[in-house]
Amino acid sequence: MNMKAVNSMNYEEFIDLFGNAVEKCPLIAAAIWSKRPFTTVVDLETSIFEFIDSLPQTGKEGILRCHPDLAGRELQSGTLTADSQQEQGQAGLTSLSQEEQEKLQHQNSRYKLKFGFPFVICARLNNKSKILQELTARIQNQPQQELHNGIEEVKKICHLRLQNIHW
Amino acid sequence: MNMKAVNSMNYEEFIDLFGNAVEKCPLIAAAIWSKRPFTTVVDLETSIFEFIDSLPQTGKEGILRCHPDLAGRELQSGTLTADSQQEQGQAGLTSLSQEEQEKLQHQNSRYKLKFGFPFVICARLNNKSKILQELTARIQNQPQQELHNGIEEVKKICHLRLQNIHW
Repeated sequence: MNMKAVNSMNYEEFIDLFGNAVEKCPLIAAAIWSKRPFTTVVDLETSIFEFIDSLPQTGKEGILRCHPDLAGRELQSGTLTADSQQEQGQAGLTSLSQEEQEKLQHQNSRYKLKFGFPFVICARLNNKSKILQELTARIQNQPQQELHNGIEEVKKICHLRLQNIHW
Repeated sequence: MNMKAVNSMNYEEFIDLFGNAVEKCPLIAAAIWSKRPFTTVVDLETSIFEFIDSLPQTGKEGILRCHPDLAGRELQSGTLTADSQQEQGQAGLTSLSQEEQEKLQHQNSRYKLKFGFPFVICARLNNKSKILQELTARIQNQPQQELHNGIEEVKKICHLRLQNIHW
């Protein structure tokens, strides 16, 4: 894959490839197809980030709400996206002890109740103990700070998903 | 289903129910959950429409690009969403003659090439001959007019999907 190939894609091919760069938000890839041609992957990534930043607060909250819980119902039922399955697996979240599992779910529930969106963290840049530590710390934050933190993590996840494509 | 039940839903339940009110854009339902409580279905619908209207032009184009072609590849391969399958079936698009099929695909391709998004029309309010007639007429429009027309059709589809829920 190179940028020349990307720039010559019709929007269907583009969405097939980048539609999950932001979890379950094909709308975002579909939107930034309008911004082609892209000079580099960074240029494409910047278009995604600018689109996210252009959304009203409800839209940013909506992006977070499209993310699965870590070690949550989608992982249990096997309905995670392929990207999330791989990321949660790498962080050790698919092999938790029962105690770790219960602790994570308990803290996740508290987090969602407080903020109205799930705890989002770039699993690939963390491991299960770091994730639980961050969750316990971030739950203390104010809502605006956590919205900001969550969106920053969405961007890190997006960056690594784009890097993960064989360029 | 009544508004009291809707207003007491957590965001996961809400997205499960309304996530496809706008085709393949769960982000929109996820965003407007922030606007609850809703007094009526119309109030909920208004929140969806206001969110759509708040998007930059690329976002509106993105919404259109998340829609399948009428009688297109997703219908052929059985990968339409349940909503779209039902809507295209009711309009007679699942039982086209080969000639009708070819004509529709040809005009659809021309439309997409001209505008960079698919022809979107509320299939439930039309039938196959009306749809082909509209496609042939609308392909003559200017891009800004067609973006506007497409988004108006998205809102009609959304309205009928909300009405289709057993309230």
